[in-house]
Amino acid sequence: MRLAHDPHPKGYDVVVIGAPYDGGTSYRPGARFGPQAIRCESGLIHGVGIDRGPGVFDLIRCADAGDIDLTPFNQQVAMATAQGRLAGILADNAAFLMLGGDHSLTLAGLRAVAAQHGPVAVLHLDAHSDTNPAMIGGEYHHGTPFRHAIDEGIVAADHMVQLGIRGHNPRPDSLDYPRSHGVRIVTSDDFADLGVTATAALIRRTIGDHPVYVSVDIDVFDPAFAPGTGTPAPGGPTSREILALLRSVGDLNLVAMDVMEVSPLYDHGGITSVLATEVGAELLYQYARLHVKDKENN
Amino acid sequence: MRLAHDPHPKGYDVVVIGAPYDGGTSYRPGARFGPQAIRCESGLIHGVGIDRGPGVFDLIRCADAGDIDLTPFNQQVAMATAQGRLAGILADNAAFLMLGGDHSLTLAGLRAVAAQHGPVAVLHLDAHSDTNPAMIGGEYHHGTPFRHAIDEGIVAADHMVQLGIRGHNPRPDSLDYPRSHGVRIVTSDDFADLGVTATAALIRRTIGDHPVYVSVDIDVFDPAFAPGTGTPAPGGPTSREILALLRSVGDLNLVAMDVMEVSPLYDHGGITSVLATEVGAELLYQYARLHVKDKENN
Amino acid sequence: MRLAHDPHPKGYDVVVIGAPYDGGTSYRPGARFGPQAIRCESGLIHGVGIDRGPGVFDLIRCADAGDIDLTPFNQQVAMATAQGRLAGILADNAAFLMLGGDHSLTLAGLRAVAAQHGPVAVLHLDAHSDTNPAMIGGEYHHGTPFRHAIDEGIVAADHMVQLGIRGHNPRPDSLDYPRSHGVRIVTSDDFADLGVTATAALIRRTIGDHPVYVSVDIDVFDPAFAPGTGTPAPGGPTSREILALLRSVGDLNLVAMDVMEVSPLYDHGGITSVLATEVGAELLYQYARLHVKDKENN
Amino acid sequence: MRLAHDPHPKGYDVVVIGAPYDGGTSYRPGARFGPQAIRCESGLIHGVGIDRGPGVFDLIRCADAGDIDLTPFNQQVAMATAQGRLAGILADNAAFLMLGGDHSLTLAGLRAVAAQHGPVAVLHLDAHSDTNPAMIGGEYHHGTPFRHAIDEGIVAADHMVQLGIRGHNPRPDSLDYPRSHGVRIVTSDDFADLGVTATAALIRRTIGDHPVYVSVDIDVFDPAFAPGTGTPAPGGPTSREILALLRSVGDLNLVAMDVMEVSPLYDHGGITSVLATEVGAELLYQYARLHVKDKENN
Amino acid sequence: MRLAHDPHPKGYDVVVIGAPYDGGTSYRPGARFGPQAIRCESGLIHGVGIDRGPGVFDLIRCADAGDIDLTPFNQQVAMATAQGRLAGILADNAAFLMLGGDHSLTLAGLRAVAAQHGPVAVLHLDAHSDTNPAMIGGEYHHGTPFRHAIDEGIVAADHMVQLGIRGHNPRPDSLDYPRSHGVRIVTSDDFADLGVTATAALIRRTIGDHPVYVSVDIDVFDPAFAPGTGTPAPGGPTSREILALLRSVGDLNLVAMDVMEVSPLYDHGGITSVLATEVGAELLYQYARLHVKDKENN
Amino acid sequence: MRLAHDPHPKGYDVVVIGAPYDGGTSYRPGARFGPQAIRCESGLIHGVGIDRGPGVFDLIRCADAGDIDLTPFNQQVAMATAQGRLAGILADNAAFLMLGGDHSLTLAGLRAVAAQHGPVAVLHLDAHSDTNPAMIGGEYHHGTPFRHAIDEGIVAADHMVQLGIRGHNPRPDSLDYPRSHGVRIVTSDDFADLGVTATAALIRRTIGDHPVYVSVDIDVFDPAFAPGTGTPAPGGPTSREILALLRSVGDLNLVAMDVMEVSPLYDHGGITSVLATEVGAELLYQYARLHVKDKENN
Repeated sequence: MRLAHDPHPKGYDVVVIGAPYDGGTSYRPGARFGPQAIRCESGLIHGVGIDRGPGVFDLIRCADAGDIDLTPFNQQVAMATAQGRLAGILADNAAFLMLGGDHSLTLAGLRAVAAQHGPVAVLHLDAHSDTNPAMIGGEYHHGTPFRHAIDEGIVAADHMVQLGIRGHNPRPDSLDYPRSHGVRIVTSDDFADLGVTATAALIRRTIGDHPVYVSVDIDVFDPAFAPGTGTPAPGGPTSREILALLRSVGDLNLVAMDVMEVSPLYDHGGITSVLATEVGAELLYQYARLHVKDKENN
Repeated sequence: MRLAHDPHPKGYDVVVIGAPYDGGTSYRPGARFGPQAIRCESGLIHGVGIDRGPGVFDLIRCADAGDIDLTPFNQQVAMATAQGRLAGILADNAAFLMLGGDHSLTLAGLRAVAAQHGPVAVLHLDAHSDTNPAMIGGEYHHGTPFRHAIDEGIVAADHMVQLGIRGHNPRPDSLDYPRSHGVRIVTSDDFADLGVTATAALIRRTIGDHPVYVSVDIDVFDPAFAPGTGTPAPGGPTSREILALLRSVGDLNLVAMDVMEVSPLYDHGGITSVLATEVGAELLYQYARLHVKDKENN
Repeated sequence: MRLAHDPHPKGYDVVVIGAPYDGGTSYRPGARFGPQAIRCESGLIHGVGIDRGPGVFDLIRCADAGDIDLTPFNQQVAMATAQGRLAGILADNAAFLMLGGDHSLTLAGLRAVAAQHGPVAVLHLDAHSDTNPAMIGGEYHHGTPFRHAIDEGIVAADHMVQLGIRGHNPRPDSLDYPRSHGVRIVTSDDFADLGVTATAALIRRTIGDHPVYVSVDIDVFDPAFAPGTGTPAPGGPTSREILALLRSVGDLNLVAMDVMEVSPLYDHGGITSVLATEVGAELLYQYARLHVKDKENN
Repeated sequence: MRLAHDPHPKGYDVVVIGAPYDGGTSYRPGARFGPQAIRCESGLIHGVGIDRGPGVFDLIRCADAGDIDLTPFNQQVAMATAQGRLAGILADNAAFLMLGGDHSLTLAGLRAVAAQHGPVAVLHLDAHSDTNPAMIGGEYHHGTPFRHAIDEGIVAADHMVQLGIRGHNPRPDSLDYPRSHGVRIVTSDDFADLGVTATAALIRRTIGDHPVYVSVDIDVFDPAFAPGTGTPAPGGPTSREILALLRSVGDLNLVAMDVMEVSPLYDHGGITSVLATEVGAELLYQYARLHVKDKENN
Repeated sequence: MRLAHDPHPKGYDVVVIGAPYDGGTSYRPGARFGPQAIRCESGLIHGVGIDRGPGVFDLIRCADAGDIDLTPFNQQVAMATAQGRLAGILADNAAFLMLGGDHSLTLAGLRAVAAQHGPVAVLHLDAHSDTNPAMIGGEYHHGTPFRHAIDEGIVAADHMVQLGIRGHNPRPDSLDYPRSHGVRIVTSDDFADLGVTATAALIRRTIGDHPVYVSVDIDVFDPAFAPGTGTPAPGGPTSREILALLRSVGDLNLVAMDVMEVSPLYDHGGITSVLATEVGAELLYQYARLHVKDKENN
Repeated sequence: MRLAHDPHPKGYDVVVIGAPYDGGTSYRPGARFGPQAIRCESGLIHGVGIDRGPGVFDLIRCADAGDIDLTPFNQQVAMATAQGRLAGILADNAAFLMLGGDHSLTLAGLRAVAAQHGPVAVLHLDAHSDTNPAMIGGEYHHGTPFRHAIDEGIVAADHMVQLGIRGHNPRPDSLDYPRSHGVRIVTSDDFADLGVTATAALIRRTIGDHPVYVSVDIDVFDPAFAPGTGTPAPGGPTSREILALLRSVGDLNLVAMDVMEVSPLYDHGGITSVLATEVGAELLYQYARLHVKDKENN
C-alpha cells in the first residue's frame, strides 16, 4: 500500500506488520509468503476509495513495520516472538494490522491486545470456527486459536461473532464449544439468507462499543475469489458481499485487525493477494472513519 | 474422503468408484485424471458437516472401489467395461457414486441402473443438456448421453430435470429434443430468477419418489468456481447456490450418483477438485439422510 | 468464433478486428496477446445460443479482419494506426467489434466512430472510470480514454453510462470529472442494489436511440470471473449478472463495440478468454437482434 | 512461422499441416492442442537463421495448409482421414511437415509416404521406440506406429535409426523387435557417449541417399527442455545437442517430416512449443539446403 | 511404481515408504506433498528398464508401506515417529526407500539404520552439504542432518561422499566441518570436470563394501531439471549425468535409500516428480542387481 | 540479496538498482516486474559462496538503491530518466549493477558509463546480438541497444565480445554489423565447441584491462534454465557453463554490470529469478575479487 517503512514505529494510528509463518498449518502450507505477496500486489491500492473523499493515509498515520522474524521450526518460540512484537507495537501505537501468516498467530495477537485492553470483542470472518481442541499432535495450530482465546478468557465471547462458517469439522463438537460460550455464529448460508444489511446490524448489536479485534481468514471467501489459501472451503460468500459488509458494520471500536492465511503458492494471477490488500485497505478505512470523527468531535 | 479401499465391495450402502476416461471429450481433455485429483484433495473433507450431527460415514457404509480399468483407445469397449463394472457394483451393493471421467460414461451408468431399477428419474446438473445427436464423427461422446438414454427408454423423461443449462449449442434443436420428451429444463437464468427454494420444490415435484440418478457435470458451476473442466460456460451458478440446492431438495430416492468432467489439467489450486469432493460428500449425506430415516422407521 | 478471415472486409454488418497492443498499460502488461487468446478459446462458442432460434451468423454478415498492425514502441503512432484502420472498417461496413488490447485504444475507436456518426452515446462497463488526467508520464494511456473523449466532444456525455466502477482511484477528482459532464455512474454496489432489471432500464433510458459505442473492459467482472487482466478489482459483478444485463438492455442502436484488457498472462484455464468470447458473442447477438428486426420491418 | 495459409496447396516444396489429435495417447492427453500452440509461438521464428545467408522461405516455397479435421472419437477413422489428407498433399507437392498430435499419426504419414515413394528410410528421434505390440486395448496408439510400419513393410528398417531411446518399456521385448529387423538404436546414453559428430556420421551412413522420413517426438528432449509432452522421460539430450545433430547430419533426401507429441497443457512459458517450432524450422532449412543445391546444379 | 500396498510389510527386500513432512524447511515449503506427487507420477515407470532384461520387481520383493503419520506441528515428535517407523521397517525387512519430505528426516533414517548396522557409509547427492549448525531457531532442520549424524557418530564420515555441492552457505565454516571429519566433497564443478566415469570410481573407492545409505536431495539437479523443490540452486548437474552416475557406481552394499525435498507446489508438468520416480527406480534396480547376484552366487 | 536499502547511495563500491521497464519489448512483456521478482527470490543467496572464504558483502560495500521511476508510456523519457539516474550513481559510487527491465535500457547504462569512462569494452551474454536497425516502428527497443552504442562510439567495439548468439535474426545483416566493427561473436555452438576454459581465455584476451561493462541478457541461457524471459531461444548454454565462465574470466576491470530481460510472467517456481540472482551475485563477487586485491596491494 505504498506505506513508509518504519522498523521501530512510534505514535502511529495503525501499524501494518507482516507475520511470515505457516508452522501452524495442518494441510497446505505457503502462508509464510503471504506478507510478501500482499506487499507485491498492494501497488494496485491507491489512497482514494471511490466516493470517499480524502484517502485513508490523509486521515490517519500509518507505517509498515516490516515482518516479524519468526522461526519456522518451533511453534512456541514463534508464538512468543509474535506476541512480544505485537505487544510492543501496541505499547507505542494505537492499533496494528497484521498480515499473515497462518491463523495460529491470531492467538498471539489476541493475547497482546488483551494485555492492553482486557478481554476484547471479536469479529471473526472465516470458513472455519478454529475452535478445535488440540489435534494431529499440535495444541496451538491454525484450527485452535479461538478455543484457546476463549479458554484463556482473553476474548469477550458474548461479544464475538464468527461469520462465514461452513463445510466440515474434524469433530462434532467444534461448533458446540463456541456456541456454549455465547459466541454468535453466522454460517455462510445464514449470511446468504440474511443479506448484508441485516448481518451488519446483527454484528453491530453483538459487538456494541467494545474494543474489538477483527480477524479475517482469507478463506472466508469462496475459493473462486480466494484460491490462494491452505484450506479452501466451497460455498462461501463473494468478495462483493464481504467488502460491503465491512463497509456497513458501522463505527466499530477497532483496536487490532488481521488478514490471515494468504498462501500465494495456491494463488493465480495474484487475485487472492489483491483481495487481501483490499480487505486490509477497507479495515484501515473503517479505523480512519471512526477516529477522524473522534478527532473532529474533540 | 478417507474411505477404506475395497476392490471387491459387497454389502455397502454406497460404493465410490473412479472412471478415469476422457475418450468422449470433444474439446479439452484431461478428465481421465479427474478421479486421481478428487482423491488427492478429498483429505479436506472430514466426516462431520457443520450442524449435522454424526458424520456421513457413521450413518452409512461406504467403500472406495478404486478405478474402473478403461481403455483410452476404444469408446465402445470403454463404455461396455464401465457398464459391466457399475452393474456389478449395483448387484452387490445399494448404490454407487461415480467420479468421472467425461460425461459419456453416464450413459453406461444409466444403463446399469435401468437394468436394475427400470427407467429412472434423473436430476442432471450441467451447463449443457448433452442431448445432441451424433456429431464430429462420434455417436457416444460427452454431448450425447442423455439423448441416447431417452432414445433407449432407460430414463423416465417426464421425471427428469436438467438444471444450469446455458450458453451455446451445436444445433438449434438440441433443447427441443429433451423438451419434446417431457424433460423439465431449468436454465441458469431460470435458476437465478427462481432462487434456491422454489427450484428445489420444482425438482421435488418433478422427480417425486421415483428412483433417481443424480448426475453432476462440474461445468454446471460458473468457470470461476470450477475452472478445471473441458467445456467451461460463463454465466453459471455459484458453489453456494448449488450446494444449497442439493441440501434443499429433500428426500430423493437416490440409487446412483456421479460427479463428472473434472479435468485437473485446467484447474488451479485444486479448487475444482475440492468442489467436486464437496458435491460428492453432499450427495452421500443426502443418501444417508433418507436411508437412516428408513432404518429408524423400521 | 469460427468466422471467415477477410483482411479487406467490405459490406459486412459487423467486422471483428484484433488490437494486439498494451503500450498504454500502467500496471500489468499482456493485453497484446488478448486477441490471440480470445481467438484460441472462441472454438467454444457455437452459433446457436440456447432459446434463441437461428444462430447469430445466420442473421447478420460478419468477418474477422485479423489484427491491426500496431507498434509496441510509440503510443501516438499506435493510436493513429488503430484509428485509421477502424475508420476504414466503418467506411466499408456497418460496425466493428474490437478485441483488445488495452483500453487506451478505445479512444481511437471513439474517434473513428465520431467521425462517422458524430458524438455517440456510450455504455462503458469497467471497474475503473478511465477518466483520469495524464499521469505517470503518459497522456493517452489506459486510464484516460474517456476523459479525452469527453474533452474532445466525441461522446454525448449525457447519454453515457459507466457501470461497475469500484475500488480506488489515483486522484480524488477522477469521478467528479465524468459526473460533472453528465455521465451516469453506476458503481458495482449500485448495480448489486438495483439488480439487473432496474439497471437495464436505467441504461435504456439514458442512452435512448442514440448511436452507441459499447465498451467492455473485462475487469468489470470480479477477478474470480476474469483473473486474466491487468488491474483486477475485487468486489465486482458476476458473469451471470453482466451477461443477463447485456441481454436485458433491449434494442440499442449499436455502431461499435469492444472487449478490452484481456491479458492471458494472468489467466488460467482460459476462463477470462472464454468469458470475453461470450461477451463478444452476446454483443454480436444484440446487434443482430435489432438489425434483423429492421430488415423484417422493411 | 508466418507462412501463408493455403487450404488447397499445390506445387509447394514443403507443406506444413497440423494434426490436432490425441486419441492415441496412453497417459497424458493434450497433443490435440499441439498445432495451435506451435503456431502461437512460431512468431519467434524469423526467416533468417544466424550465419546462414538467405532465409528458408526465400529458398523454397512453403505453405501452411491448416489442420486436418480429425474426429477425437474413432481411431480408425482419424488414421484414415490423416492418411488421405497427407497423401493428397504429397500428390500435389514435394513434401510435408506434420505438426502433431500424438505419435500414432506417424503411421498414417508413413503409409502416405510409402504409397508415393515405396519403403522409406526413417530417422526417428524419441525417448521411446514406439515398437510395442497392441496393448491397453488399443492396436494403433502412440506406442505402436513403428512396429506396424515395420510389419507393413513400409519402412526400410535397415535404413532406420531410432535416437534418444531411454527409460522404461512396457514389455521386455520392445527393443528386441526393431533390432531384430535391423533398426539401429542409439540410446540417450549412446548419444552422450558418441557426441554429436560421430552420431551424425552414423546416421548419415545408415540412411544414405534413401528417401527419408524424419519423425521427431518432442519427448526426445529431456523434460527440462520439453516439459509439454505426454510421457516425459528424464535423462534425455539437451536442445543444443539435438539441434546441432540436425544441422550436422548433412544432405538427407527428405520426403516427409513431423514434430509430434507437443502437449501445451503441460508446457510452461511456451518453451516446448518454441522448441518444436525451432525443430520444424531446422527441418525446413535442411530440406531447403539440399534442394537449393539441386536447383543450382541443374 | 504400481507396487502393492502393504501397511505392515514383512520379509521384503525393499519397502517404499512416504514421509509427508516439511516442518524442517527453512525457505519454501511443500515437501509434505512430495510422496503424494511422486506416487501420482510413478505410473510412468514400468517395470522394464531398456537393455536390462527382467524388470526390477521380478528380481526383488518390494512393497509400498504407505505414509508415515507425521505431525506438522512438532519437530521432535515427528523425528521420533519417523525413526521408530523406519526402525520397524528394517527390523522386518532388508532395506527401505524413503520418499520425502524434507531432508531433516534423513537424520531419523540414519539413526534407524545405524541402530541396525552401526555407523554407515553415505552417498549424499545434494546442492547443499546440510552440515550447518543449529540456526534460525532450529536445531534439527533440513540444513543440519549430516552435521548431527557426524556428531552422533552414526555415519562413517571417511566413507562418506557429498556430491553436487554448490552455491552459497549460510556460514563460512559449513564445508569445513564435513571436510575436517574426512568427508569427500565433490562440488558440482568438480563433477563436471571429472565426468561420470571418474566420479563413479571415486565414489566406489571411498565407500568400498561398507553398508551404505544413499540420500538424494532432489535439488542436486539443476533447477531446470527439478524446479519442484524448496531451495533450488542453479549450476547443477543434468538428469542424464546423475542417472548415469547411479548406473555406474557399481555394486554398493545398499541398506537404505531416500529421495527427498520434492515440493510439488513449485513443480510444473510433474517433471520433478517424474525425475524423483526415475531416481527411486534406479536405486531399486541397483539394489536388485547386487542382491540377485548374491542369490545367484548362493 | 539482503542488501541495505539506500535511496541516495554515496561512496559504495557497487550500487544495485532496479529498472522496472519493458516498453522496449517487441514480443513478450513482463520484464517490468523483473526487479521485484529478483528481489523476492534473492533471499536464497547468502553471503558466502562455497570455497570462497569471506562473503562478498564483507569484501566490498554495496547498497540497494531501489528502483528507477520509469514511465511505461514514453521510451525517450524512460531512456533519459534511466541514463540520468545511472550517471548519478556513477558520480557518487564506483559501479552499478542494474536489474532489468528490458535490454533497451542497457543503452542508457552504456551512455552513463561512457560519459564517465569513455568508450568501454563490453562483455555481452545474450541469445541475440541486439544490433538490429530500427524496426517495428521503434528505434530504441530491446533489439537495438548495441547497434546504437557502436554508432554512438560509446563502446570500444574491438574489445567487445557477444556470447551465446543463436537462432534467428529479423534481418540477414544483423550479425554483419557488429562483425564489421570488430566485435567478436561467440555463438552458442562456438561456446559448446570451445568449452569454458578456452572461451574464458578468448574473452580475457579481447577485453584486456579495459574498463568493461558486462551485460547479461537472461535469455543467453537455454529456456530450460531461464523460461522467464521475453524472447526465449532454444539451443543455449546451461547455467553451469555460464556460471563457470563468469568465474573463469579472471580479473576484469568491471565498471558496470546488468542482468536484464527477466520476465516473471513466464517463469515458474522462480527458477529464472533465482538464476538471475546467482548471476548478479557472481558479478558482485568478481568485482569484489579484483578490488580487494587492489586494496591488499595498496
